[in-house]
Amino acid sequence: MSDATAAYPVQAYRDEAAVQQNDLLAVEEPLELRFADGDESHTLSVMLRTPGHDTELVTGWLSAERLSDAVERLEGSPDTPNVVTLHGDAQRLRGAARAGLTSAACGVCGAGSIERLSVQAEAAIWTAGALSPALILALPERLSAAQPGFSATGGLHAAGVFTPRGELRCAFEDVGRHNAVDKVVGWAALRGGLPLSNSILVTSSRAGFEIVQKAALAGIPIVVTVGAASSLAADTAGALGLTLVGFVRSGRFNVYAGAERVAGK
Amino acid sequence: MSDATAAYPVQAYRDEAAVQQNDLLAVEEPLELRFADGDESHTLSVMLRTPGHDTELVTGWLSAERLSDAVERLEGSPDTPNVVTLHGDAQRLRGAARAGLTSAACGVCGAGSIERLSVQAEAAIWTAGALSPALILALPERLSAAQPGFSATGGLHAAGVFTPRGELRCAFEDVGRHNAVDKVVGWAALRGGLPLSNSILVTSSRAGFEIVQKAALAGIPIVVTVGAASSLAADTAGALGLTLVGFVRSGRFNVYAGAERVAGK
Repeated sequence: MSDATAAYPVQAYRDEAAVQQNDLLAVEEPLELRFADGDESHTLSVMLRTPGHDTELVTGWLSAERLSDAVERLEGSPDTPNVVTLHGDAQRLRGAARAGLTSAACGVCGAGSIERLSVQAEAAIWTAGALSPALILALPERLSAAQPGFSATGGLHAAGVFTPRGELRCAFEDVGRHNAVDKVVGWAALRGGLPLSNSILVTSSRAGFEIVQKAALAGIPIVVTVGAASSLAADTAGALGLTLVGFVRSGRFNVYAGAERVAGK
Repeated sequence: MSDATAAYPVQAYRDEAAVQQNDLLAVEEPLELRFADGDESHTLSVMLRTPGHDTELVTGWLSAERLSDAVERLEGSPDTPNVVTLHGDAQRLRGAARAGLTSAACGVCGAGSIERLSVQAEAAIWTAGALSPALILALPERLSAAQPGFSATGGLHAAGVFTPRGELRCAFEDVGRHNAVDKVVGWAALRGGLPLSNSILVTSSRAGFEIVQKAALAGIPIVVTVGAASSLAADTAGALGLTLVGFVRSGRFNVYAGAERVAGK
């Protein structure tokens, strides 16, 4: 096991029966880039990444942003492993921060991100009783039937919301998995349908922090993804009282958080 | 075929023989969000998305960014389908733009993005002769052997660079596919190895615009992805003289651009 993965307890369903097991999840944590400016330092950017090789990551990112020659050295500290401070041309880095490289989407560390989100999130309301494993297993196919683009191109993500009975309310597709979820939430907002209580969000993608974040902000209590969940997605769903189900394929799935909303044998 | 897909000519290899065929690609285009401020308008954000349902996308995005109540109405125009202008509380939207929601990563339309990139990109130098289909088919497995996290979690992307003979020079994994590529470029930069002439970038992910963009900026002439390519990725690779190979699996692959660097039967 490398630093890139972490063992998490999951409730694994196979043939509709549940067993407790440990699953390896991809580790996802925010990295804050700061730049030194005299005695102060300021945020340049916050990105979500898998820890390890942060020097390579930051160096490559600076190269892509055409900022390599504005930075003389990177400074990290074992006490704050999710912060890297850049020393160099403060004026250019200030300009880059002002020009919009800074993202406000997440925080300095996983815990901070979850705390901030828990203040902003809608209550996750689910009054429809426990979902049957059979229904969960059927959802990806129902989404995929409403998603012509993926089978045609292999390159589109889909997201849709379903009722507790598994009826599709809407589905959208996009090259960006976050965009597909934004379209779903936007669809609901345009119909006065927020928060999306008693709704199941189903996506064809993996579950990262931002997918769970978008669900929490829209009040969606259950998230089902065809792909794997990241560590921060599982932590966030758990802390906010959401149910997170992933890896739904071939008659099996994993419940990473909120297993009380899934019926067991 | 919906607006979300577009037919592209590709050179498809099967059992090492090439045939010309049309393939459906996921359409990827930038969307610029502007906000009206008196008689002027300014950029709030630029995102890459699949066209269609822009109203839902923007509404959902505004909701996730907690800006819904700052916007009274959205204005689009058939003449500029990749621009949506927000009318509402200009002061708050100005503040949001300043706080960093604006991304400078791409332009107002695909053509603009490609033009800007062609000025900044390194020359894509490849002097090693045409790649054999057999070598291309072997690359994903060689990457995957260096990528322990994916098989363990199903949730990590990998990226690596290979020599023209198919020898792995470095490989990194990350929950973010762009991060994995940034780590590769950063690795090279730290060793004085940029531009990455005569190198093959291999990623476990799909090829979107930003993957090709990062390759072009690092001078990487050949990009090979396990997943599908987007329309803008294919257009960009073509315009910049890069070779883009995708869908490398089960003995077959597609060449979306720069087929002269791939040997045919």
